[in-house]
Amino acid sequence: MPTVLSLPVSEASRPDQQTAPIPRTIDWAGDHLVAIDQTRLPDELVTVELRTVDAVIDAIRRLVVRGAPAIGVTGGLGVALAAVVADREGHDLAWVRAEAARVRASRPTAVNLAWGVDRALTQLGHGTAAVVDAAVDLLDHDVRTNRALAARGAAWIRSRAGHAVRVLTHCNAGGLACVEWGTALGVVRALHDTGDVVEAFADETRPLLQGARLTAWELDRMGVPHRVVVDGAGPSVIARGMVDVVVVGADRVAADGDVANKIGTYPLALAAARAGIPFVVAAPESTIDMDTPTGAAIHLEERDPDEVLVWHGRRVAPARSGAWNPAFDVTPHDLVTALVTESRVVELSAGQTLDAT
Amino acid sequence: MPTVLSLPVSEASRPDQQTAPIPRTIDWAGDHLVAIDQTRLPDELVTVELRTVDAVIDAIRRLVVRGAPAIGVTGGLGVALAAVVADREGHDLAWVRAEAARVRASRPTAVNLAWGVDRALTQLGHGTAAVVDAAVDLLDHDVRTNRALAARGAAWIRSRAGHAVRVLTHCNAGGLACVEWGTALGVVRALHDTGDVVEAFADETRPLLQGARLTAWELDRMGVPHRVVVDGAGPSVIARGMVDVVVVGADRVAADGDVANKIGTYPLALAAARAGIPFVVAAPESTIDMDTPTGAAIHLEERDPDEVLVWHGRRVAPARSGAWNPAFDVTPHDLVTALVTESRVVELSAGQTLDAT
Repeated sequence: MPTVLSLPVSEASRPDQQTAPIPRTIDWAGDHLVAIDQTRLPDELVTVELRTVDAVIDAIRRLVVRGAPAIGVTGGLGVALAAVVADREGHDLAWVRAEAARVRASRPTAVNLAWGVDRALTQLGHGTAAVVDAAVDLLDHDVRTNRALAARGAAWIRSRAGHAVRVLTHCNAGGLACVEWGTALGVVRALHDTGDVVEAFADETRPLLQGARLTAWELDRMGVPHRVVVDGAGPSVIARGMVDVVVVGADRVAADGDVANKIGTYPLALAAARAGIPFVVAAPESTIDMDTPTGAAIHLEERDPDEVLVWHGRRVAPARSGAWNPAFDVTPHDLVTALVTESRVVELSAGQTLDAT
Repeated sequence: MPTVLSLPVSEASRPDQQTAPIPRTIDWAGDHLVAIDQTRLPDELVTVELRTVDAVIDAIRRLVVRGAPAIGVTGGLGVALAAVVADREGHDLAWVRAEAARVRASRPTAVNLAWGVDRALTQLGHGTAAVVDAAVDLLDHDVRTNRALAARGAAWIRSRAGHAVRVLTHCNAGGLACVEWGTALGVVRALHDTGDVVEAFADETRPLLQGARLTAWELDRMGVPHRVVVDGAGPSVIARGMVDVVVVGADRVAADGDVANKIGTYPLALAAARAGIPFVVAAPESTIDMDTPTGAAIHLEERDPDEVLVWHGRRVAPARSGAWNPAFDVTPHDLVTALVTESRVVELSAGQTLDAT
């Protein structure tokens, strides 16, 4: 059952909204998952209970839960749920493994999903409680990881800029993309905590508007002055000197440092390189996939053309027009000034490599 | 009174739609203007009559008429209308000049608007008929110009590629952006006439979706296989080798060759340069403004934030979130492989200059 925690967020007259606590993006409730339904933000903050593996897979596919770190944790919790259901209904371990494989395949690009599933599966021979414990550990691990990488990224930007900064981000790599706190937007949050953010620009991020809907909502709650821009305007924000740094998340980082992230990230990296400002990727170590040699080898999910062609049930293009709807693009490593994880900063464009540490 | 010529275009089952003649984007009807209302495409093809200077200005501001060449002609016809009204209502030439100044100021970036207004104003001392003739001449001049530059651009691309091409375009620089035929999309049309277009990609072009609504509609009617992509995906279309050339229009070209065009053009130029494919700007000579030395000196219109934040009356971002909504960006001339006009091809990135011919 969905629980409406507060609505509508879009009423400007409720300052308490800004600091009211929000639940974790994804959490474990003893024998099922609870998730914020991100498809309904910013209009209303609603949580949904996920009591079957099918419900978990559907939530991942429909982007009820999205963001590489959050779907990684959800993958682990999905395995825990499968183990709990197997206990209750008398299925064997092979059944749990098959359910885990279905969860792992629900979206192809974020390597964190496979990582989370596998972390829970390592305990499969040790009983359901061990599987659940391993999955629940992912929740705290994610929060610790985000805080560490946010602090590291903020410190790197502070020392590089030497003053409070104006930042541009793309899509949503905030608390809503993780269990809480956030990666790229976690860096912005850490900078904001010390008064080091002048203004943030959020690309709206078509087709699903995670920037306008989710990042703007998080920035609003943090109290960070911010403006939304269409995706085509992000490179102009950079070229016209309106920001000092670009910070984005990642869905998979290949062994050579190439970065798969939300479609529309690559043009920001091109513009940042031309403008000579840092392009920073903030992502946990679990996003790095040393088994994928380069960006060209990353499987980039293509989604339903109607996400592009139809808007709130209304078709915008002619009936015979098709669309190509890739969810991600690849930014070559030579355009990435710094990859920030919970344990290191790798200055890729300066020639540092991922295997050198 | 609006005239509904055919509707809805979005019914897929009417092949006759594809080749049915469409009226000129803008035309003169003896004592008033007639324009296609482009805000209603692709849902319906409707013309509106513009019988006052205020109606003309409103049509330009609301993008009922848009595209640099079309608003240039509309500017001239607006002066003709002012002269006709002055005759009928007994106003003097100073009144016509003041009305012309209001038309010229209705949008700031496209230099063609001032050019069209001034072309009609040159005849102001010679009587209303002379003013009207000068304005009506702009209609035929635009069609001749577009056909010439389209042929020139198509020939340049054919000789450069040596085979049928896949093209990417942005916004709408088609017949709807001109009186008829088109500039960038006119080049595509000329290539298509000889079977030299394999596929066209159209950036949707947020915030007002001229690509998804207008370019896709024109490509559909031409019978060119095409797909729409979100603006953030245009650079991926290029990087992944899915097109051979990028062709766009222009709203103003500075003396150094810097190009102001619809927001989202610049990232395509960056991506084309990195991929090593030609980035072609197709625009009439009237778009070149030798009085503006560089792109930095071009006044780039900023429009209502609600164009970004609100969709069909529904707000997409939180209520407190603002937006920055520039209508245009500037592509530096070193990223422009070829500027094609009705009289020349200037290979800017190779060092050719606009004043060298």
